[in-house]
Amino acid sequence: MASEVGRVAVYPGTFDPLTNGHVDIIRRGSALFDRIVVAILVNPAKSPLFTVEERVEMTRTVFESQPGVEVDTFQGLLVDYASRQDADVIVRGLRAISDFEYEMEMALMNRRLSPTIETVLMMPAESYTYLSSRLVKEIFALGGSVRGLVPDVVEAGLEEKANAGQHRRA
Amino acid sequence: MASEVGRVAVYPGTFDPLTNGHVDIIRRGSALFDRIVVAILVNPAKSPLFTVEERVEMTRTVFESQPGVEVDTFQGLLVDYASRQDADVIVRGLRAISDFEYEMEMALMNRRLSPTIETVLMMPAESYTYLSSRLVKEIFALGGSVRGLVPDVVEAGLEEKANAGQHRRA
Amino acid sequence: MASEVGRVAVYPGTFDPLTNGHVDIIRRGSALFDRIVVAILVNPAKSPLFTVEERVEMTRTVFESQPGVEVDTFQGLLVDYASRQDADVIVRGLRAISDFEYEMEMALMNRRLSPTIETVLMMPAESYTYLSSRLVKEIFALGGSVRGLVPDVVEAGLEEKANAGQHRRA
Amino acid sequence: MASEVGRVAVYPGTFDPLTNGHVDIIRRGSALFDRIVVAILVNPAKSPLFTVEERVEMTRTVFESQPGVEVDTFQGLLVDYASRQDADVIVRGLRAISDFEYEMEMALMNRRLSPTIETVLMMPAESYTYLSSRLVKEIFALGGSVRGLVPDVVEAGLEEKANAGQHRRA
Amino acid sequence: MASEVGRVAVYPGTFDPLTNGHVDIIRRGSALFDRIVVAILVNPAKSPLFTVEERVEMTRTVFESQPGVEVDTFQGLLVDYASRQDADVIVRGLRAISDFEYEMEMALMNRRLSPTIETVLMMPAESYTYLSSRLVKEIFALGGSVRGLVPDVVEAGLEEKANAGQHRRA
Amino acid sequence: MASEVGRVAVYPGTFDPLTNGHVDIIRRGSALFDRIVVAILVNPAKSPLFTVEERVEMTRTVFESQPGVEVDTFQGLLVDYASRQDADVIVRGLRAISDFEYEMEMALMNRRLSPTIETVLMMPAESYTYLSSRLVKEIFALGGSVRGLVPDVVEAGLEEKANAGQHRRA
Repeated sequence: MASEVGRVAVYPGTFDPLTNGHVDIIRRGSALFDRIVVAILVNPAKSPLFTVEERVEMTRTVFESQPGVEVDTFQGLLVDYASRQDADVIVRGLRAISDFEYEMEMALMNRRLSPTIETVLMMPAESYTYLSSRLVKEIFALGGSVRGLVPDVVEAGLEEKANAGQHRRA
Repeated sequence: MASEVGRVAVYPGTFDPLTNGHVDIIRRGSALFDRIVVAILVNPAKSPLFTVEERVEMTRTVFESQPGVEVDTFQGLLVDYASRQDADVIVRGLRAISDFEYEMEMALMNRRLSPTIETVLMMPAESYTYLSSRLVKEIFALGGSVRGLVPDVVEAGLEEKANAGQHRRA
Repeated sequence: MASEVGRVAVYPGTFDPLTNGHVDIIRRGSALFDRIVVAILVNPAKSPLFTVEERVEMTRTVFESQPGVEVDTFQGLLVDYASRQDADVIVRGLRAISDFEYEMEMALMNRRLSPTIETVLMMPAESYTYLSSRLVKEIFALGGSVRGLVPDVVEAGLEEKANAGQHRRA
Repeated sequence: MASEVGRVAVYPGTFDPLTNGHVDIIRRGSALFDRIVVAILVNPAKSPLFTVEERVEMTRTVFESQPGVEVDTFQGLLVDYASRQDADVIVRGLRAISDFEYEMEMALMNRRLSPTIETVLMMPAESYTYLSSRLVKEIFALGGSVRGLVPDVVEAGLEEKANAGQHRRA
Repeated sequence: MASEVGRVAVYPGTFDPLTNGHVDIIRRGSALFDRIVVAILVNPAKSPLFTVEERVEMTRTVFESQPGVEVDTFQGLLVDYASRQDADVIVRGLRAISDFEYEMEMALMNRRLSPTIETVLMMPAESYTYLSSRLVKEIFALGGSVRGLVPDVVEAGLEEKANAGQHRRA
Repeated sequence: MASEVGRVAVYPGTFDPLTNGHVDIIRRGSALFDRIVVAILVNPAKSPLFTVEERVEMTRTVFESQPGVEVDTFQGLLVDYASRQDADVIVRGLRAISDFEYEMEMALMNRRLSPTIETVLMMPAESYTYLSSRLVKEIFALGGSVRGLVPDVVEAGLEEKANAGQHRRA
């Protein structure tokens, strides 16, 4: 049942960093739902490359001209966060079979925890099939070019980190 | 871009017969989109158990009290049909990995043929994971009970076919 | 709950023809259960290479010295047949992932149709991973050697069919 | 060949904690084999949530009225432990394809290390398909309810850990 | 061990019709091996869209300026044909997991039938991941455009078939 | 395009330790390409069982009589290393589906980073399907025999490590 503001989708993830595959899914999702909230997970147990604040800012920069896209952070159970957002649907990208099983498991568990929030799986353009945040960081750390794999603002952010002496071989 | 009637989804299939897994996906889809069209494929090359007319009627019976669900038939390319319906999205159920590869292939090909129509994959309740039209027909033909696997009107339809001497062992 | 004769397993299949992969699973199964019934499906809709009678006879020949192995035929629902045999368990061989999904689907559906009969999946020796009845027939039809892929009695049976002018290129 | 006490199965795992999916497999396994030993792996390299002693006690509590189910711990190679138990078979649960490949690898390697011990794969009820110890701990740590996912004694154990200030957000 | 003409590869298939995915694999293969033979299977049991002669001609047209690519037909066991060609290697394209299991099975069986001929799997450009001869025929038959999916000579061939009244809806 | 020294292949990996599955792939690869470089990844982030020097030496010992096989180490991006070696092709072994997705991802990303270097996937003998460096270390650490799983020189190396008091239970 859509609220008066229409259907609301949550697109959760770590986004460390945001890739062009993520951007592609967000664009596709924003065409289907009235509001899509990019929800960046705050996970104190992991040591990310970019801080949560940096990730929020970079994501906002990419989508600043798209009114239907919001950027937020969350902690705790995703379905609790989605409920507080009055979300109708959780959007997840599906690149490959290894994704699929994990996504299936999460979707079924989330449905059990909160039966009214649906999960839909969407496919990025096939040129992003092989793309992941992990791979972007790996390639960059090894001195490879990530142009075309991430938005410009993320590429700049990676360069900045590198110049600060981190995460890139001399 | 949603039309004034909101987002329109197409849920295509053969539905020979409609199972409770299909019903589950249609209900879930109708909660996310303003209109969902159950689009029954007319495939002259196959000899179905139920005629297209019977399948349309049974599906309409199941959803008669749900205004957002329509039932229609189509021939030819799915994306051409979806365009004529001003559909924003094609909904597909995803039960298992073997589904996944086929769905991925179809979704990517459909996107190539019509870039503005998105495909989303949704998961039925896990109790329908093992359910397919083929299996329903097989169990029924071998004398097993299909109660709980299909809507009542489909169970009645199967019994009728059986009494007419077809598709069931003595 | 085992009957006084101990646990009874059913190993169903088409066995057209019996391969060394099947023989391997039957041997492994007969070590775990007190009685294992090789249950050959009579499927009037298919035109097999060997008649049901030929398949029964070849299978009996292979296992004639193993008292725990019986050979039988069945029609209709597997779980109905297994119930009539007072079987505790259905044994299935698992060679590959494509097998797995089908087996999962069948096992869950059979459990729904008859909750007291369990399905267990067993793995053949890895040298039989690539072996199937279909592949045996294909190789033989194209003039290849099937020695080591099937029991001797099956190889002889294939030669006989070939000499009778069927299923092998001149 | 079964010993006079009948067939003995070993069901190995970490069980940190025992889930209802594990309980389901143990119940199914105990119907097929005369004795089933739940063998809890002592792995000094990992820091579990529950101590081995706690896991043994919780598992014993769940199965105290089932004479065919024993609970034990083991270190070292599983096949060595299984041999010392005169086990005929290793039972493993199979939930998904990602499980399948790992299980296949382990089963084939275990067979190589000890050819007389067979592995059989069994499927839990489909409502436990998405259930794992990891997911239970994650949901609980994030403040979600695990009722219905684990036995009562495990739920109580989780609450106790939480009250002791560990593993749950304020 | 390469013969004096260098390494010879065989790329077998039905090619009904040749797609741009096939063309991509042939180009990649011809960069790695000195000679690559596109080997079109003559399968009397199937009724193809294009005759073997038409498929040979279209494939030759596409590769006429590439001296390392030959086009041939074969019947019978692939490994027997490859031996007669003094081939070192069988090349197969790998698009997806469903391909993978079949290819694995065939490669292992072919190795058993002829241990000196190796199989290598190569990946087409990701834009051809969803492409297959079956899908090309289906899209064309339903009135869709296959431009970019097949070489021009194949597109022309499809149009010709359609004008001759076959395989396309009015 | 092959250089005057013929086609050069790179077979990258960690090889900690080299298993008989790796040896099998190297032998098969050296039959197809004029030179195959076993390229051992120097990864400062991981703490391997064997030092890079030990791994180089053990691998050289195994292949000392095979002139087409070289052993080297590399850091950084694989495609950069392969370019410096004038390699035409990256060879990877493919054991299972879980391998497949990772290999596909890496192959497509490597192609994007360096379009002229192709990746080919080869299959080890099926008896090595379940074999991995991780499993070898695990079995050895738990007191199991690794004879037949690794070359003799590696088995000796493992014994030496064990006698030095590491990686094996008393």
